[in-house]
Amino acid sequence: MDRGFLFGDGVYEVFPVYNGLILGLESHLKRLQKGLDAINIVNPYDKKEWISIINKLISYHQENSKQAIYLQISRGCDDDRKHTHDKLKPTVYIQSSPFKSPTKNDLLIGSDAITRDDIRWSQCDTKAISLLANIMFAQEAKNHGVEEVILIRDGIVTECSSSNLFLVKNNCIYTHPKGPYILPGITREIAIDCAKYCDIEVKEVTFNKDSLMDADEVWISSSTREVVPINRIDNSLINNGKVGEIWSLIYDRYQAIKSINA
Amino acid sequence: MDRGFLFGDGVYEVFPVYNGLILGLESHLKRLQKGLDAINIVNPYDKKEWISIINKLISYHQENSKQAIYLQISRGCDDDRKHTHDKLKPTVYIQSSPFKSPTKNDLLIGSDAITRDDIRWSQCDTKAISLLANIMFAQEAKNHGVEEVILIRDGIVTECSSSNLFLVKNNCIYTHPKGPYILPGITREIAIDCAKYCDIEVKEVTFNKDSLMDADEVWISSSTREVVPINRIDNSLINNGKVGEIWSLIYDRYQAIKSINA
Repeated sequence: MDRGFLFGDGVYEVFPVYNGLILGLESHLKRLQKGLDAINIVNPYDKKEWISIINKLISYHQENSKQAIYLQISRGCDDDRKHTHDKLKPTVYIQSSPFKSPTKNDLLIGSDAITRDDIRWSQCDTKAISLLANIMFAQEAKNHGVEEVILIRDGIVTECSSSNLFLVKNNCIYTHPKGPYILPGITREIAIDCAKYCDIEVKEVTFNKDSLMDADEVWISSSTREVVPINRIDNSLINNGKVGEIWSLIYDRYQAIKSINA
Repeated sequence: MDRGFLFGDGVYEVFPVYNGLILGLESHLKRLQKGLDAINIVNPYDKKEWISIINKLISYHQENSKQAIYLQISRGCDDDRKHTHDKLKPTVYIQSSPFKSPTKNDLLIGSDAITRDDIRWSQCDTKAISLLANIMFAQEAKNHGVEEVILIRDGIVTECSSSNLFLVKNNCIYTHPKGPYILPGITREIAIDCAKYCDIEVKEVTFNKDSLMDADEVWISSSTREVVPINRIDNSLINNGKVGEIWSLIYDRYQAIKSINA
């Protein structure tokens, strides 16, 4: 009778952990709070308590140098299945999984993506567990043997099924602005910081598929995949299939940030 | 680890049962199959088996003259939480709840609704359990003390948070055509059949909010709420608050169908 199971009524976070230390802890907890506020669930724990819970779980899995901590909060169990709810006790689910990051050499080969219409709801900035559209896209990517599905809403490239998207044109980085049509990725923010550190201009503006296909570089970002270059979209090569130099700078800086901040 | 709980990855049906007999059994099972096909879950039972399972459950609750049989099929449990999946054994959840229908006298008082932007995904014809948008609207209706939230997508009135919508103008009934923006309600189909039986024209075409507010009648339909007249929207009276005669004809015919078909 959990409303997570019956309605997809909850939010989640994935915290990447490197050698026992969480990257972007504050940002993830802040987004978790925003998600809970957006769907009107009272946060069952305060920041200090969450940090203690998460670190306890991390300590159980010290054998994994890289852990993805999945944390889900659903609205809780009700007496009967009904769309509306009274005050319920939220259900907390948390788990640690090991994850691998590809090496830079692996990434330099480049990855494929396909494009699809973005059929998701218009509140993509809430990291909700009602993820049917996203997982259908992920499955389609898997079936096509590609890294990601790039989503296009009303002609505008938004993001991917579970990552944000960047393009580079004439040494400037472009990515969809924050708002209801994208998930405000923590790795997206870190990548933007990396660009600023490297003195590369970043424009958070919308762009269409033509701009995407005509880009010098395309890459995606997510907490567990980090920053991955895409060099083929819908079977067409991007910039003749060459993985870009700006991606390489951002990737290197991201690796440095990981060891400084985590 | 059920993907229903982690991703809202499943579909559902609600079968209305009157005195032990299911109304619209074939249509509900057909829609269930369509939903499973749409999200690529293999139906774990055939039609005969489903009927047997549902009737068994109904027999356990004979004390309730009206039962709502809730049936949910999620993709099943995986070893780890990952967006993609291999072949899994679907999870079946089924329950019976008693439900009440208001009397015609109750309904003749009329009901209130409010309008909101339809932020749901663009595959509303799949009766999926990823229902966060819908339940947020339902909760808003409850908080406002109204019967329903009427949804408007790009200026077009689609349906409600958990019911289809009809308007009447100059003795013609209008309702949003089937397609990705509405759930193809079984009660919607029955109401259309009732109208045909009563020689009332039905046009399945789109209309905007102005047409809605200017209607002679507005009503909603759902399997457990049946056909409910709405006489006030966003605090404005529809047709001076008068519940309409065409609604009354459809309502009466629906009650007759219930006793014939169920």
